Amino acid sequence: MYREEDLHPFDEATSLTFENDKYSGKTSKAYGNMIGPFGGVTAANILKAVMDHPAREGEPISLTVNFAAALKDGGFTIEASPTRTNRTTQHWYIELKQKDSVSITGTAVFARRKETWSETEAQFPEAPQAKTIPSLPTEGLPAWLGQYDMKIVKGLPNLAEPKIVKDSTTIQWIKDEPNRPLDFLSLTSICDGFFPRLFVKRNEIGMIGTVSLTVHFHADMETVEAVGEEYVLAKAWANTFYNRFFDQVGEIWSTKGELLATTNQMVYFRK
Amino acid sequence: MYREEDLHPFDEATSLTFENDKYSGKTSKAYGNMIGPFGGVTAANILKAVMDHPAREGEPISLTVNFAAALKDGGFTIEASPTRTNRTTQHWYIELKQKDSVSITGTAVFARRKETWSETEAQFPEAPQAKTIPSLPTEGLPAWLGQYDMKIVKGLPNLAEPKIVKDSTTIQWIKDEPNRPLDFLSLTSICDGFFPRLFVKRNEIGMIGTVSLTVHFHADMETVEAVGEEYVLAKAWANTFYNRFFDQVGEIWSTKGELLATTNQMVYFRK
Repeated sequence: MYREEDLHPFDEATSLTFENDKYSGKTSKAYGNMIGPFGGVTAANILKAVMDHPAREGEPISLTVNFAAALKDGGFTIEASPTRTNRTTQHWYIELKQKDSVSITGTAVFARRKETWSETEAQFPEAPQAKTIPSLPTEGLPAWLGQYDMKIVKGLPNLAEPKIVKDSTTIQWIKDEPNRPLDFLSLTSICDGFFPRLFVKRNEIGMIGTVSLTVHFHADMETVEAVGEEYVLAKAWANTFYNRFFDQVGEIWSTKGELLATTNQMVYFRK
Repeated sequence: MYREEDLHPFDEATSLTFENDKYSGKTSKAYGNMIGPFGGVTAANILKAVMDHPAREGEPISLTVNFAAALKDGGFTIEASPTRTNRTTQHWYIELKQKDSVSITGTAVFARRKETWSETEAQFPEAPQAKTIPSLPTEGLPAWLGQYDMKIVKGLPNLAEPKIVKDSTTIQWIKDEPNRPLDFLSLTSICDGFFPRLFVKRNEIGMIGTVSLTVHFHADMETVEAVGEEYVLAKAWANTFYNRFFDQVGEIWSTKGELLATTNQMVYFRK
């Protein structure tokens, strides 16, 4: 049971200690998935290794996380190396290991933002207000879903009626459960906080695993932090399912209509 | 002047020699951009270092290329390391250096494809047939544009009338000039073969530079190679331009309506 004076479960799950140029962390039961931990929190840990690094300059612009192996519950180490530091941008390579074997690799671009002419072309998804939608009951679902309050506007897999639908789009309001102010780490995790497109497309559970996840950040720290404990509106869809791999495209919006991040992933499926 | 018995300029530009676990290559004047070489060919070289590698298994699924520094015209070395090899997937980290300093980093996921249930949700863009559209005259433009035959259906920057437009979408037919059968390398390069969204959005040239490019491959080698010397239909748009960075999303389609690849990049702009 979480009490307000405790560390928030997400902060516990992304708690890293830094020693001899290496981080140590451990997977969190609270964010367990069907097998191993929820990938969103793993991606957040990869980003955190850069965010926390003494050499880090600027804010995240781009993050790619490659899931080379299913993480096992338990400890891991992360090494984050700046590959190049420029005046405006900084590039990073990150490796997460379990028992000396590489499980996750990642690259990140950080940059110093500066106010410029700006304009958003993407359209804020049509959705009724969060308060009008019931929260998804998470009992009996993998643990990580209990760490989010999701209000699914459309695109919830209907396992009672397994059939292939034409459009696998999901639109959902989502925030941390219990409440936690949004930051780049939880935003990264929320980029993976969807039911996999295959489940929505076929209205059945299948054997899947993300192999590569990219997040592009479109907001600065101030904008992200201004979201506070509000819901964000998240939309995901697929371009194609083809011979063992499908993609998942996502957008994360603030209620004010700011596009916070876009995300793309490639996901393995068995059949 | 290119003669049929010569190496195709694209093959010359992606020609790597492998020695002591390291590749050597050099930039190609034929694919020169405003400053340094065209990023698409650089991305193709990063992919080629894996494609050619004796340890490589399977076909490309995902590729991320980070442009840490503007490449200088001249020689470079590439090191490609398999970070993990599984039964179905193989993960790679790639670094390109000039004079011992990292200019480009990349990660790639390769996999053994297998026939499964498949379905495409993305819509083939509406466009008149290639033969009805004139090819873009490339005289006076950066060299790389002369290496492509582009037929722009919509979204060609109109520099005579600099003004901000609402929709920066481009749709274009594109193929190598001179003809060359499509493969994963030229497909990767074509993923970057658009005028930058900023130029289309504001109908003026600005100072820009891609910082990170991701390609997701949605076709196997047979499908890609079956395109041969046909045009592919390419569509690109932007989600947002925000405080020094904008994104560019792209789709590459075969004339038969197969989605060959999707791509996302984050691009620096000065103002």
